[in-house]
Amino acid sequence: MTSALINRPALGNFPSSDWASILRTGILSVAPKGLNQVFTGMSGSDANETAYKAAFMWKRQQQRGGHHVDFTPEEISSSMINQSPGAPQLSILSFKTGFHGRLFGSLSTTRSKPIHKLDIPAFNWPQATFPLLKYPLEEHLQENRKAEEESLAEVEHLITTHPLPPCAVVIEPIQSEGGDNHASPAFFRALRALTRKHDILLIVDEVQTGVGATGKFWAHDHWNLTDPPDMVTFSKKAQTAGYYFGNNDLRPNKPYRQFNTWMGDPARAILFRAIIQEIQKHDLVNHTANVGEYLYSGLEEISKRYPGEIQNLRGKGQGTFIAWDSPRRDEFLKLAKGVGINIGGSGERAVRLRPMLIFQRHHADILLEGVEKIFKT
Amino acid sequence: MTSALINRPALGNFPSSDWASILRTGILSVAPKGLNQVFTGMSGSDANETAYKAAFMWKRQQQRGGHHVDFTPEEISSSMINQSPGAPQLSILSFKTGFHGRLFGSLSTTRSKPIHKLDIPAFNWPQATFPLLKYPLEEHLQENRKAEEESLAEVEHLITTHPLPPCAVVIEPIQSEGGDNHASPAFFRALRALTRKHDILLIVDEVQTGVGATGKFWAHDHWNLTDPPDMVTFSKKAQTAGYYFGNNDLRPNKPYRQFNTWMGDPARAILFRAIIQEIQKHDLVNHTANVGEYLYSGLEEISKRYPGEIQNLRGKGQGTFIAWDSPRRDEFLKLAKGVGINIGGSGERAVRLRPMLIFQRHHADILLEGVEKIFKT
Repeated sequence: MTSALINRPALGNFPSSDWASILRTGILSVAPKGLNQVFTGMSGSDANETAYKAAFMWKRQQQRGGHHVDFTPEEISSSMINQSPGAPQLSILSFKTGFHGRLFGSLSTTRSKPIHKLDIPAFNWPQATFPLLKYPLEEHLQENRKAEEESLAEVEHLITTHPLPPCAVVIEPIQSEGGDNHASPAFFRALRALTRKHDILLIVDEVQTGVGATGKFWAHDHWNLTDPPDMVTFSKKAQTAGYYFGNNDLRPNKPYRQFNTWMGDPARAILFRAIIQEIQKHDLVNHTANVGEYLYSGLEEISKRYPGEIQNLRGKGQGTFIAWDSPRRDEFLKLAKGVGINIGGSGERAVRLRPMLIFQRHHADILLEGVEKIFKT
Repeated sequence: MTSALINRPALGNFPSSDWASILRTGILSVAPKGLNQVFTGMSGSDANETAYKAAFMWKRQQQRGGHHVDFTPEEISSSMINQSPGAPQLSILSFKTGFHGRLFGSLSTTRSKPIHKLDIPAFNWPQATFPLLKYPLEEHLQENRKAEEESLAEVEHLITTHPLPPCAVVIEPIQSEGGDNHASPAFFRALRALTRKHDILLIVDEVQTGVGATGKFWAHDHWNLTDPPDMVTFSKKAQTAGYYFGNNDLRPNKPYRQFNTWMGDPARAILFRAIIQEIQKHDLVNHTANVGEYLYSGLEEISKRYPGEIQNLRGKGQGTFIAWDSPRRDEFLKLAKGVGINIGGSGERAVRLRPMLIFQRHHADILLEGVEKIFKT
């Protein structure tokens, strides 16, 4: 996560002080002969990919007639040569401008930017249009409802006609990497109903939105669902990764079908526990909801004075998960660093805020002051 | 890693004491509404998948004419719909009975057992036969050389004729999950030459074999290569994951092409550093080479007395990375637990040893005694 670091020298994403020396005296000190560089891995893409695997297993089990029905000899032999029916002709449906990770399965559902996808083989899985809402919301009620209805119709069309039928739909509560794109709770409730109607799963990707920043612990808490998502994936702020689920049919029916060496890293599960305890102790979710409201109002004020600079301000009622479009986004981000604010972008032209949960009103004041200073000069 | 735990109650792979309570009081305490179960992720499959991504980018860059040549508009637009040329029709070649992980790209190269692959969509990538050597090696020199030559010929045939041309070959120094299958250093040197000849990459997957257990820090150190592998992947014993490389052309030529949230987890890089320091301080690699020789000799002795029980004993000179085939493997593993030895299997019928690096001669004595006890009764 990037965070708004105020009045401090701009920092990158990594522990910059001794990371190089940790690598040099550690990993690189045992580099194989002739190799002198290293790329380290391990990330939240796993959370989504294991959720997808669970979805494929669930659908095939259902098609097979239940978890007591054994694989056929043909399934077993074809799986070993990566062919159907063992490796099934099924898919995961995702949305345009969505981001779900960078490994081969997750990247096949990522649709945010070409730079993430170029040169990497991908599955021919379907994508639907994410409803692109217009702001301010209250002035575009009909248009926005229409955009959401069209998106849902496209989802249903793809579910029923795509040559690789989806066994699940994956969606972010707020498309984060892809530009901080929001949709209404009604849209998500309708999507839940649609996936239920067609007997496929709904996977909510809360890798970016989860753990408090939207003013709820999980962003999808804002939707008031009566029927919960089938799976919710998490990573980032959780400092660990995985997916929640409730349906016993999503449990692997045999050993070793879903498995990895550390099963999520016990040490990091302890970290997440400590993070949760700290959040509860300081009531940081409600705190973030309040500070977010304060921050949003301040930005709304500024946007009235500089309507050319802050366009499509969004994230009202979503804690500090706030963004706006800027006609000179990259320049703005650079100027922001000059006034002591380390801030990031999403999509093609959004400035998006991702402060830490301990971000307070007086930090918001410094941020607002800095933003206005940029517009003034 | 499973390890031979002697004279202690048999333990599983996980911290059994308070893992459930860590989950309950941590991750599960914030489960989204309606969901009450969790599957945690994060594993070494990432190491292989990021290496594969680097290989695809490298090959496409080469085909494009170098890292200064920009993507075409067609590449950019086709990548966003998961189609060629942006999502290229290229592949990674792997070997039958190989294991390289469980996510969508890595699983497409895994060929060890159907249970890992069933119900999961896969890329139609090529697989070559791994030479299946006969033991004792010195009695089957010609047959084994022939098996290796045939495997290399098949690799070359697939490189030159497969509809999805491989940009890399991935191979384990010892096929671990797939049955502890070894090949000669000459085979691996020839494979290195073959990949060089056809201008594709050699990725050595040392996730299981790396970090000392074979009596070298990396198992491929046994091959005496003059031309190192292009990439070496690691995880497990390293307590972190990633790949080593040497060629600057394997570095991403633009930001965000290879990236993940924690870039390998700095905390775990510190752990790996401490592990390396401990290994060096206690000279554990040489120690393992010596104990392995002692253990191998002991098993060889027993195999002479019980030739029906210990077949195809292998791993001579490979530290404690020793295995044999058993005509009653699963029964043997169960009986072993009864005499205080927690031991695992690989492939269909191999008993494989994976003791920790601190395994000593007196542990080997207990193991040998236990094994003989099983055969006697």
